[in-house]
Amino acid sequence: MIGVDWGTSSLRAYRLDAAGQVIERIATQGGILSVTDGDFAGALRGTIAPWLANGERRILLSGMIGSRQGWIEAPYLPCPAGAADIAAALVRVPFDGADALLVPGLSDSDAAGTPEVMRGEETQIIGVLANTAEATACLPGSHSKWAQVAHGRIASFRTYFSGEAFAAMRNATILGRMMNDAPNDALAFERGLARAEDPGHLLNHLFGVRSLGLFNRLGADESGSYLSGLLIGHEVRAALPRGGIVHLIGAAPLCALYARAITRAGGTPVIEDSEAAARGLHSIGASAPWR
Amino acid sequence: MIGVDWGTSSLRAYRLDAAGQVIERIATQGGILSVTDGDFAGALRGTIAPWLANGERRILLSGMIGSRQGWIEAPYLPCPAGAADIAAALVRVPFDGADALLVPGLSDSDAAGTPEVMRGEETQIIGVLANTAEATACLPGSHSKWAQVAHGRIASFRTYFSGEAFAAMRNATILGRMMNDAPNDALAFERGLARAEDPGHLLNHLFGVRSLGLFNRLGADESGSYLSGLLIGHEVRAALPRGGIVHLIGAAPLCALYARAITRAGGTPVIEDSEAAARGLHSIGASAPWR
Repeated sequence: MIGVDWGTSSLRAYRLDAAGQVIERIATQGGILSVTDGDFAGALRGTIAPWLANGERRILLSGMIGSRQGWIEAPYLPCPAGAADIAAALVRVPFDGADALLVPGLSDSDAAGTPEVMRGEETQIIGVLANTAEATACLPGSHSKWAQVAHGRIASFRTYFSGEAFAAMRNATILGRMMNDAPNDALAFERGLARAEDPGHLLNHLFGVRSLGLFNRLGADESGSYLSGLLIGHEVRAALPRGGIVHLIGAAPLCALYARAITRAGGTPVIEDSEAAARGLHSIGASAPWR
Repeated sequence: MIGVDWGTSSLRAYRLDAAGQVIERIATQGGILSVTDGDFAGALRGTIAPWLANGERRILLSGMIGSRQGWIEAPYLPCPAGAADIAAALVRVPFDGADALLVPGLSDSDAAGTPEVMRGEETQIIGVLANTAEATACLPGSHSKWAQVAHGRIASFRTYFSGEAFAAMRNATILGRMMNDAPNDALAFERGLARAEDPGHLLNHLFGVRSLGLFNRLGADESGSYLSGLLIGHEVRAALPRGGIVHLIGAAPLCALYARAITRAGGTPVIEDSEAAARGLHSIGASAPWR
């Protein structure tokens, strides 16, 4: 089968054998925002034409391709949900010459009734944790997801706006005007993590990025890493109150920062490999109602 | 004397009689950022020329005019500080034909040693609370200030980045892309305040602005007010843990929103009049070392 992780700004396609091993892979910047006139079928065909010519007839797609801005909206499936639940809720899209199915996103709700949503991350979590009795997964990013897995199903999850908050603070506030573009500064990142442990609200701690700069106690090459540590530290301490093992799924540099924050908060990080989506697509595809 | 509250983007000048009553006032958009070639003396002279012609010889200036970006940097004075302490730390600037003095900003430090700064707000607080034994003041804005006053002196203060965080979320994130420019929606603001009372971190609550919109439970005309309530609610609950009277100093519409949040958090808001700066300039001027 062919598995496609098709997000807003990128596309990753995998040709998988019956055991779920990746035979070939294609990665492009052709995210759903780059598709013109809604011609997702044409864009997909152009990307995976060689594999179709080789006889592949099953295509499973996850990510924002199943959103309102994508091909067809695949309605959110409420938690708890595992691979079989997701496979039963796949949405077929018209595609000549192959059977193409969309993975739905998942929804959840907190005690106050505020909704939670994910789309794409469920496939990665299934890829890593489908055979796990109890686990915590963290998928850092613009909208970081923290999920609880029970008996191989995603039981519940919460979203933290940390990544997009960082970008907004960096690009649109006085804090960013004091920052150089600089590589990660491990010591400044650690100082931000330490600050997140102090009493006081994030909204107060944010102002410290400016005041420390005014007193020459935080340099322009350091303040971006400090802000990153402050936000990640706040997120991890809120999401992981009791320690425990956390499976990190995502880009390696960001996972390394989260691993440090999790360790500091008393948890045990496990950085998972980067082909979680391919494995999740295989797991879900194994139960899919292929024609 | 002449009192001038000279900020980044505006200037307010007051001609005061010996009892501190405002005889005349001038308000312009001529903030320090609008002054070219550092000619603050020229800009000031142009603004208050009629009063100088009438014989005024004492000018006291507060606000960002005393910052690194202003006329001369007046170093921060550490808390605790009252009118007499501030008057003893005024910084003289060269100005032909009158004696011109700059009010220093104040600094403080939290238990972890992170600095706090204000510049301009100290004069407004002195204007309202110089004769008060014990009081809490809140000056809402881009960088909201919460100050404790004891025996007429500003004992300590904390800054919350709420106003600038709101603007950044509004202008530079996916949350803002779901918002119309709309007048304040009192019910949506209240829902944001209520959300701030729920368990969970602000970084999680922020994502709810998006997820509620996805499920059509928060409209494009409502989500700005909801976000405002969420941020102000978080700030007030963090800054005012034990209730009590809060003196609100600032723009009337914003003070009204904070008053609602303070009431909901168990506090008692008192909205002060809008000429706090004029009264503070008079109080400090009464102890100033005029030539």
